[in-house]
Amino acid sequence: MDWAVILAGGSGTRFWPLSSPSRPKQLLPLVAEHSTAEDTLDRLTGFIPKSRILVVTGPALAPLLTAKLDLDPANVLIEPRAASTGPALVWATAEALKRDPSATILSLHADWAVGDRAAFARTAEAALLAARTHDRLVTVGIVPDRPETGYGYIIPGDQLDGGVRTVARFAEKPDLKTATALVASGALWNSGLFAWTARRLMDEISAHAPEIGAHTARLAEGDVAGFFAGVAAISIDVGLLERSERVVVLSGAFGWDDIGTWEALTRVRKTDAAGNVMVGAGVAFESSGCIAWSEGTPIVLSGVKDLVVVHANGRILVMDRSRAADLKRVLDALPAPIRDLPG
Amino acid sequence: MDWAVILAGGSGTRFWPLSSPSRPKQLLPLVAEHSTAEDTLDRLTGFIPKSRILVVTGPALAPLLTAKLDLDPANVLIEPRAASTGPALVWATAEALKRDPSATILSLHADWAVGDRAAFARTAEAALLAARTHDRLVTVGIVPDRPETGYGYIIPGDQLDGGVRTVARFAEKPDLKTATALVASGALWNSGLFAWTARRLMDEISAHAPEIGAHTARLAEGDVAGFFAGVAAISIDVGLLERSERVVVLSGAFGWDDIGTWEALTRVRKTDAAGNVMVGAGVAFESSGCIAWSEGTPIVLSGVKDLVVVHANGRILVMDRSRAADLKRVLDALPAPIRDLPG
Repeated sequence: MDWAVILAGGSGTRFWPLSSPSRPKQLLPLVAEHSTAEDTLDRLTGFIPKSRILVVTGPALAPLLTAKLDLDPANVLIEPRAASTGPALVWATAEALKRDPSATILSLHADWAVGDRAAFARTAEAALLAARTHDRLVTVGIVPDRPETGYGYIIPGDQLDGGVRTVARFAEKPDLKTATALVASGALWNSGLFAWTARRLMDEISAHAPEIGAHTARLAEGDVAGFFAGVAAISIDVGLLERSERVVVLSGAFGWDDIGTWEALTRVRKTDAAGNVMVGAGVAFESSGCIAWSEGTPIVLSGVKDLVVVHANGRILVMDRSRAADLKRVLDALPAPIRDLPG
Repeated sequence: MDWAVILAGGSGTRFWPLSSPSRPKQLLPLVAEHSTAEDTLDRLTGFIPKSRILVVTGPALAPLLTAKLDLDPANVLIEPRAASTGPALVWATAEALKRDPSATILSLHADWAVGDRAAFARTAEAALLAARTHDRLVTVGIVPDRPETGYGYIIPGDQLDGGVRTVARFAEKPDLKTATALVASGALWNSGLFAWTARRLMDEISAHAPEIGAHTARLAEGDVAGFFAGVAAISIDVGLLERSERVVVLSGAFGWDDIGTWEALTRVRKTDAAGNVMVGAGVAFESSGCIAWSEGTPIVLSGVKDLVVVHANGRILVMDRSRAADLKRVLDALPAPIRDLPG
């Protein structure tokens, strides 16, 4: 049967000062009135029942996430430590396999925007079908609409049956020149949307990813702490997908965005005629290309261009849009009493 | 004896959202830790005793100003209506004349910055002396350091005894080209710092300013309300100084600034190496030429240039510096619930 694994860990600072350790990106209403985690669950339940959706997160977030998403606690997998996507997905896959020997897994993240729900569902179901039919590890590659430097790329190879292609190679986040060439050559964004049968994933991990595979016996024994104590923190991409020969790619186009920076809001939110995104109380006067986010205090922009202005958690950030991807460097330079948010 | 009249009316919106009707510019600590009104009084008391300093203001501000400046209520003149500087100065001059037939008046505003107190005192005393000695209306013209378009100009004429010159003409706020030519030709800024004997002022008003002079008999009768009901709202410059032939100019240089806009803070406040003025909790990261004013909430600037960022009275303003003189136009366009400040 079809299962889904939602990765909902992480406590990034890319949406500082709105995101905080107790309310990270996936719990923020970045795209619409609900959090992206709620949107993610809602998007899935049309074709996968909630009883077969597992959520992987950390101990700090688990209670809030369980409550907010109204999850069966048995379906919330609490990682004893953050160890990247490899161990998390292997654990969740092993867990699904325990409950359903025929499990096919759709793996996704809790903090994405998806513009076209119907197209997303069609692609996800096609990926699950391809995983079962071909017994392959299926990656979904997004048809790019710009030379984005913030994403990894998948370079497709030969066409196979069922609309999938082999993967010629993966490319890490490129510079702009490389990204432009990749897009021109038909490369796809590596979204992190994957599908595989649970059995095949475990076999491939054993064969190719010793950093994780050497410890999966612990999972069979129910010793999750032991598994996490042993594994390396390694992504599923680097640990397995770049090594296995059974990886294929299915292309998709459903308005996907991983909302990686404040600037992404100009893509996933409604803009005014001058390209401003105003969330909360705010007025843009003779201003363009700005993102203003207020949790109550009105923000008045006058004669400014391409700014990110955020008032949240007792901090005000005013940043040039072009610096949005670079926010961490600013935070590293801030005095702790300003950087560290309450709660 | 020497008297001073401090004009402390007005409830401008040039420092929105920091300035509010109940706390206008002259009560804000724009230049230093004290308000400009307090600084103004303090600057005078070295050479004019407090008992001979009159403050003209409106009914809303009078109680706060009286308390904050620890004034004798008899020296606080409360205008029944705001009627520009002409009627205010005539009333205060008539009041001084009642108390002291030999009164010489120094007239100034409560919302100026003065960088060099000693030079200010020297110039003020020279102006008072010239007013007594020559029986003239003495204007103090500031030696300009830039072609400011926000000020009026005085074009000096012939040199007279005692360091004063006649006034060839006054020029209203000029455009940049005119201002540049004025500065090059030796014109001075019309500061609003004036001196005259009380008798001479009243005589000149009678002779040249019927809009005010026709009603001064009311003041002699103690009928202030009647005086203000009758007079036209006219500035002392337009109503008298541009008409009288007894006007002279004394040049001064004491770091004078009327702090007319947020941008003025870059002149009257300490800037960091990148030209930022950060008041309150704030950090400027790879940013230059910005003015950030916070009443508590830390403001973090990143990669921005020439912005005014203010958080006060439950509003956030983010404005290009070049728009500072144009703030009123923004306020006129704002919805009232955002524009109108609490208190």
